[in-house]
Amino acid sequence: MPIDYSKRMQTLMGRLKSKALDIALITDPTNIFYYTGFYADPHERYMSLVIHAEHGSSALFLPALDEEMAKESAEVDEIHPISDEMDPFYIIKGMMEEDISKIGIEMDVMTVSHQNGLKSIFPGVEYMDITPSIDRMRTLKTQAEVDGLKKAVEIIETVLEEGLATIHEGMTEAALTAEFEYLMKRHGAAGPSFSTMVLSGEKSAMPHGKPGERKLQEGDFLLIDFGVITNERYCSDITRTFVIGKPTGKQKEIYETVQKSTQAGVDAVRAGAPLKLFDIAARDVIEAAGYGEYFNNRVGHGLGIEVHEAPSIHHENEQLAEPGMVFTIEPGIYIPGFGGVRIEEEVYINEDGEPEVLTSFPRNLRSIQIR
Amino acid sequence: MPIDYSKRMQTLMGRLKSKALDIALITDPTNIFYYTGFYADPHERYMSLVIHAEHGSSALFLPALDEEMAKESAEVDEIHPISDEMDPFYIIKGMMEEDISKIGIEMDVMTVSHQNGLKSIFPGVEYMDITPSIDRMRTLKTQAEVDGLKKAVEIIETVLEEGLATIHEGMTEAALTAEFEYLMKRHGAAGPSFSTMVLSGEKSAMPHGKPGERKLQEGDFLLIDFGVITNERYCSDITRTFVIGKPTGKQKEIYETVQKSTQAGVDAVRAGAPLKLFDIAARDVIEAAGYGEYFNNRVGHGLGIEVHEAPSIHHENEQLAEPGMVFTIEPGIYIPGFGGVRIEEEVYINEDGEPEVLTSFPRNLRSIQIR
Repeated sequence: MPIDYSKRMQTLMGRLKSKALDIALITDPTNIFYYTGFYADPHERYMSLVIHAEHGSSALFLPALDEEMAKESAEVDEIHPISDEMDPFYIIKGMMEEDISKIGIEMDVMTVSHQNGLKSIFPGVEYMDITPSIDRMRTLKTQAEVDGLKKAVEIIETVLEEGLATIHEGMTEAALTAEFEYLMKRHGAAGPSFSTMVLSGEKSAMPHGKPGERKLQEGDFLLIDFGVITNERYCSDITRTFVIGKPTGKQKEIYETVQKSTQAGVDAVRAGAPLKLFDIAARDVIEAAGYGEYFNNRVGHGLGIEVHEAPSIHHENEQLAEPGMVFTIEPGIYIPGFGGVRIEEEVYINEDGEPEVLTSFPRNLRSIQIR
Repeated sequence: MPIDYSKRMQTLMGRLKSKALDIALITDPTNIFYYTGFYADPHERYMSLVIHAEHGSSALFLPALDEEMAKESAEVDEIHPISDEMDPFYIIKGMMEEDISKIGIEMDVMTVSHQNGLKSIFPGVEYMDITPSIDRMRTLKTQAEVDGLKKAVEIIETVLEEGLATIHEGMTEAALTAEFEYLMKRHGAAGPSFSTMVLSGEKSAMPHGKPGERKLQEGDFLLIDFGVITNERYCSDITRTFVIGKPTGKQKEIYETVQKSTQAGVDAVRAGAPLKLFDIAARDVIEAAGYGEYFNNRVGHGLGIEVHEAPSIHHENEQLAEPGMVFTIEPGIYIPGFGGVRIEEEVYINEDGEPEVLTSFPRNLRSIQIR
């Protein structure tokens, strides 16, 4: 089932009108993609989607270089190519027939320069942040979007299994990372959805560590946190932690605690509950086991056409869970100087308000033998 | 020779003082890296480098998750971890003893939300764009930086040669892209410096095309535009265009025109000349050959710790070339429905004001045989 971009645009226009906004000016490339089906990274060049709520019309302003691609895929009423020597604000101004008094923008994305440009053509205008409206739409996934996300999960789980089989004596974290990213492309992904994390030994305790020249060794925790973005731009994100060789008693204890924590987080998920409860449910397990001080970040984040998007699953978020939300549950225990374990699943709240775990890679403790 | 981050910071502080700025608040992760040696992508979390010109002090505000890594590598006076429930502006405000009346920011990077946060803690403050000062510093490379860039070139040229050897019957653009990106990591790069372009046949005429499932075929132009970013964060960027099988007369003519154009662009480079002359020199060759309408973008861009940075080499840029600048010269001819050729070199202006071409992959027309 294809995505109905015009329906999305209509829904947004309805919200803009209800807030008495004359136009919305969207600059986040991912949000532009969400409403038009066209994605481009304009780098330092100008790109924006201008939506005129009253007229019910949309116009895409983008680098002249990308015009051909936009004509093929962008579902908008008008496309305005802007070459390097043109002033985009002059062109936008020229298109507006009437007075503009209230503009919706993404305040977490639009730059100060960009707003200054708008101020120069629309003096005295009022600005309102439309990020909450956009985020809310993006948060509630349709079946077509869930299918896209499932495909991204399928690819990464295949990559995980095939990549583990390449582990050999003397292999470094960086070399295993290269194997994984090669397999992502070979299995049809556009690429990694974020910087692939392959962390071994003590480094597995670093939530944002980078793969390096450390060689995989007997007795290591091996933490793998990665995902793909598909050509349709759906992201996946999964973490599994392995032990190389035979696990020690302490490794087992930590692993099993995290395993229970992930399960508790998933089990807590249901529509209508405040999102914070899913974090608390997972956190309680780790705290009860005496490892509370070693789990000091939120339990999860939404994902979709970005690997991090709304909602945020943290212990103070009172927002209520709704059918259509997709997010990660990824508790962990990170002990500096010893190592860390994280087990991350993707959870979708279906139409019945029940959790469906999109990831399916086995969660039990697995020992990797180095060949 | 290691990079002297404190010298960079001192130089910037001098410029801030000369502009009567009390503090500078830097938010671009690459600029933070340039002045501190520490790089992190904070995603949606808060990160900024606050430089107090009068005190001569610097403070890094960053996600608590990244604190350990920052302690290892960030050359700053203070590190302030910010956990997810904290308000970064409250913390910044608490650190400032005296009145702040003028703040330097990167207007092309700072978001409207971020500036609103600053306005809430520093009401009535004046803002000035410090991007030109930062860009100017980053534009003028030291020998250590040129050495870092050369290493990035070495890797990508090795990858190009080895990747070409993997071409076989039935291979798609996407599959060749996967081989190239695998080789990048195997040769020690952190990853691609931008989305690898492998375009064949008619698609080679798209300056921003994406590799797809098209199979490489006899008679194709094969355009490869790619680069790596090293672990030290230096970028490379090179384009070569090949012909699969025996080139036709028209392919030869187009190729040789671009080859002459690239040479003319490189030959024009010298310190003291306006940058636009390098674009015009390359463009004249293509126009004289009757292909002017098929070359409709700038001839090049600066590169360093980002693959696109200042200066921009376009036909209206009056800025004067200086020793230390590194930029690409990459003219091309793109004929819709037929195909395109681009030949891209990296050029460094040395201390004598002379051009040194950092790229060394042969520029002559090369025919690829499919095995």
